[in-house]
Formats: sequence, C-alpha cells, structure tokens
Amino acid sequence: MRAVHIADSIVSVHDLPIPAVPEGFALLRLRVGGICNTDLELQRGYYGFSGTPGHEFVADVVECADASWVGKRVVGEINLACNHCSWCARGLERHCPNRTVLGIVQHPGAFAEYCTLPIENLHAVPEGLPDEVAVFTEPVAAACAILEQVPLDAGTPVAVLGDGKLGLLCAMVLALHGAEVSLFGRHPNKMAIAETVGVRPTAQSEIGTRQYPIVVEVTGSAAGMADAIRMTEPRGKIVMKSTVHEPVKIDMASVIVPEISLVGSRCGRFSYALPLLAAQQLPLNQMIQAEYPLTEAPAAFAHAATKGTLKVLLRN
Amino acid sequence: MRAVHIADSIVSVHDLPIPAVPEGFALLRLRVGGICNTDLELQRGYYGFSGTPGHEFVADVVECADASWVGKRVVGEINLACNHCSWCARGLERHCPNRTVLGIVQHPGAFAEYCTLPIENLHAVPEGLPDEVAVFTEPVAAACAILEQVPLDAGTPVAVLGDGKLGLLCAMVLALHGAEVSLFGRHPNKMAIAETVGVRPTAQSEIGTRQYPIVVEVTGSAAGMADAIRMTEPRGKIVMKSTVHEPVKIDMASVIVPEISLVGSRCGRFSYALPLLAAQQLPLNQMIQAEYPLTEAPAAFAHAATKGTLKVLLRN
Repeated sequence: MRAVHIADSIVSVHDLPIPAVPEGFALLRLRVGGICNTDLELQRGYYGFSGTPGHEFVADVVECADASWVGKRVVGEINLACNHCSWCARGLERHCPNRTVLGIVQHPGAFAEYCTLPIENLHAVPEGLPDEVAVFTEPVAAACAILEQVPLDAGTPVAVLGDGKLGLLCAMVLALHGAEVSLFGRHPNKMAIAETVGVRPTAQSEIGTRQYPIVVEVTGSAAGMADAIRMTEPRGKIVMKSTVHEPVKIDMASVIVPEISLVGSRCGRFSYALPLLAAQQLPLNQMIQAEYPLTEAPAAFAHAATKGTLKVLLRN
Repeated sequence: MRAVHIADSIVSVHDLPIPAVPEGFALLRLRVGGICNTDLELQRGYYGFSGTPGHEFVADVVECADASWVGKRVVGEINLACNHCSWCARGLERHCPNRTVLGIVQHPGAFAEYCTLPIENLHAVPEGLPDEVAVFTEPVAAACAILEQVPLDAGTPVAVLGDGKLGLLCAMVLALHGAEVSLFGRHPNKMAIAETVGVRPTAQSEIGTRQYPIVVEVTGSAAGMADAIRMTEPRGKIVMKSTVHEPVKIDMASVIVPEISLVGSRCGRFSYALPLLAAQQLPLNQMIQAEYPLTEAPAAFAHAATKGTLKVLLRN
C-alpha cells in the first residue's frame, strides 16, 4: 500500500505492506486526511519521530471482528489506551501512561491507504456529513476540550489569541456555545471565517489589561503567554493550547498576585465534537485551502507549512 | 511614635507623628508583628518600596468611630478595597484594582506604635488566643486560600514543595483539612514541626513523576516549578505560591500534554484562618525563632533574613 513517510525532516511516499489487524482492532481504508500543525512539527523533528504520520482522517472500515462496523464511514480517537490502568478506569484514556498515539507515538498514522485502530476508538460519521467536514472531528474535539475543562456560561466574554487553524476552531466552538468571543489575530481573511458564527475579529492593538475572565492562548508563539496574562482578570483562567518548543518565560508574580489559573488543554472527546459537526453550523469548508492526492503528500506538506495556510487535505 | 522605616534597602526606626484616622478607619496600637518574606523583599527593593512595612500583626483598637471596637484586640485584613468596583461587589476585595495594601502598597504598615485600617478589615482575636498565635492569622489565611481555590477531598495525596514558613503552614493547614500531605524540604528540623499534625516529611530524592493530583509549589526558587510539573498527575493542579523575581522558564508541552492546571494563589480570608487558629492544633509556637522589641527592628530584619530562619516577631 502507499503510505506517507517522515524521516530526517523529509516527507516521502513509500510502499508498505498492509498492516496486520490485532485482536480488537479494525482495518481502515483512508478517504481523506487533514494535515495538522503537529504533523509539521513531527516533520521538523521535534519529537524524534520517524514513520507514517496522520491523525485527522475519515476512513471506511474494511475489516473488523465486529461485522457491524464493516463498510461504515468512521473517524477515530487518536489515543490507543491500555484499558487496564487507573486513568482508563476514570475515563481519561487520553492520559493513559501506556498509550500509543495514532501517527504521533508508536502507532502508524492515517496518511496511508490503510491503518488500524482499536474498535472502541471508532465513531461512525453521521450520514450526510461530508468527508471534508468530518475530517475536522479531531481538531474540533480539541477545541471542545476547553468546555470540559473551564465552565463557561452563555455571554461570558472570552478572548482567543491567535487566528491559526486551532485558534479559529476554538473561537467558533466557544461562540456557538454562547460565549462572547473576541478573536485577536493578524489575518482579516481568516478572522472573517469565524465572524460568520458571531466571533468578533479584534485588532492586536486592542490588547489591554485585565479585560477577560477567560483567555485562550493559541498563538503558537512564546510571546503569546505574556499578552494572555496581561489581558486576564484577577481569578481568571488562561487556557493554554500552544505547545511551543522553546521554554516560555513567565513572570510568576503577574500570575500569582491576580491569582490567575493557567489550564493546559490538549485533546478532547469526539463524542462532543460530532454533534457540533453534524449541526453544520461551523463554516469548516472555508478553512480548506487545498487538497492533494496521497501520492503528492510531499507537496501537500510543503503547502501546509507555508505561513498563513489553513487546512490542507490529503485524499486517498 | 516609633515606626520602622525602609528606604534604599536600609531598615531603621524613625520618630513619626501618630497617623490621622480617616472616616471609617480605626487607630490601632501594635502588640506584636511578624516579619514575612515579603517584608524582606520590600527591603531588597523589589517593589521600589519605601516607608513603614508590616502586615502581620496583633493590635489593640485605641480609637474608632464605632465605640464597640475600642479596647478590642484585633488582627486585620491587609487589602484596603475601594468598596465601589465590581470586584468588591463580588466579595473579592483582595483583587480590587484600586486597593492599597497595608505595609506593601501605599498604606503605612503595622511595624509602628500605631497604624490605621478600615473598620471592615478588623477581626477580633478570640479570647484566650495568645498574641504569638494570632500573629499568624495572615499567613495561615494565605495557606487557607488553597482550600478556596482547589477543591480537596479528605485523603487526597498532596505534595508541598518547600519547607519555609509558608510551606510549613500550607502543609499543616492541608493536613488538618484531611489531605495526605507529603512535605518535600531540606530541613529535617523544620519538617519535624509539620510532622506533629500528620504531615509526612519527604526527602528531595523521592521526587518522581506523575505522583500527585495536587502539588503546592512554595520553594521560593525558580527551580521549583520544573519539579512541581514533573510530580503532577495528568489533569492535576499545581498551586503556585512562589512569587520569585526572575522569570521562570516553563516547558509548555510538559503542562499542556498532561493538561495540568497552574493555579496562582496569594492572600486568603481571615474568616477561614481564625477558627483554625482558635482550635490551637497548629504548632505555631514552634515556628517562632526570635522576638525583638520594635526599636531593634534592624537586628530583627537581619535575623529574619538569615537562611533557614522561621518566624521573627517584633513586640511593641
């Protein structure tokens, strides 16, 4: 089968055997995949990764011990948990210390003709939901994780810092949830997408002090945290979404004196994201900037890495 | 009147006029004051402070428009709020943006024969509670702030990093609240004080990974945060109490991937601390290392600044 391969910062397309299907797993045939910033970071060598990337996907189930899944169009949770530890018992499989992660940690990813996932990770895609929308399930779930971590009443003013892919999704998900979202970005064309669901595009120059009870830091840059801390009210919360790679310097007094909380936030539950996608209120099609066949993955990765690019898809 | 004075990193004792008593304020005559690390930081010039320090005190009310207070022995909340803003309306006077702070920000402190405070800041000291215990009300309230910010069930394992004055108080308050507290420090003699209320003294060498759902970082050093992050379970909370002055470098991925929350924590409510002190279960007398008359404040500050010193008191 064809499979995208990353090694030594080079993206190529290899021919690999179709993967064996362990007990309890399903064999999936890729329909469409989405390139995420994490994939670009894997390419840059941040995690010493080599192998097949890809964790945003829609696929068809082609082989599965539970025959009811065969033929279904699915998306899949990306953390492969052990199901035996205390984290799994608490429903926090995403934090299982023994987990592997699709296309990121020790489990070959979805940017290949075929991949495997445990049956329990699969979610059927609601009928009528286009592949190009369903492929956003994983990043929309990551945006939904904020709602699970930070209680948010309707009408709460929220600032989202950063108008990249995840920034737009966070802003739109929170706005649909009823928050009054101001999006601080540098790209009017991107911010206009979020504006269609009620997000207020806001200029960087409007960054002030102690303005918001909740700030989502998703700039992807080390400088974002200082702005976020400045903008947050006393006892407010900053949701941290930017896993930047250089250490970030924080003035502790600026957090401790106003008793701000900094909340690390990563993956979310697909079960939260799918109904939101099914409602088709998110203008996700406007976030798609290009589509490449799987065989042209090197060009697709190069395109996705171009500054300011939103979603680039890979089609099998 | 005699008043301690800090200017250009020098502690001296001046003769000053007895302060005027604004409407709604009481005039207090110092009985005993406690030197806090913040006082030492004011001396070091961190906040550009000059004037009379002192915010841990027990005093007698000598003048007050409300005659029922006159003659009472009191402690006092240190934040002087405006009572007109939205923060004050929410009961968060401690975060009033217009506040002054006794002995810290724009209001002369308690290390003087007399000081003033708004009547609403006063709390009568329960009868029978010695001055040497009541003087710990402010720092014990700061330890109690943790309970207000982080819900804590009985039996929850908690690590407290740092066996300084505030570290000991945090460890002891959380242990009395029912948590299973491990105190990571470098001074067996200090940790032994906390051991008397059920805190487990723990060697630095036992610092491991993902051990605790709640970690209190109160080392006062920039290095403490990295240890705290390492020790915290996924979805766990780090209570940050160390307002160190150099910026602290944080590896964001180490916080975001396990979705840890960092909770800034500062002052607490006296109404939480006083019943705890009245119960006399905290071995606070063991934390007092020296007592000086107010006139010998320079020697008292020098003693308090000696590494490893616990509480030094000033008596009027």
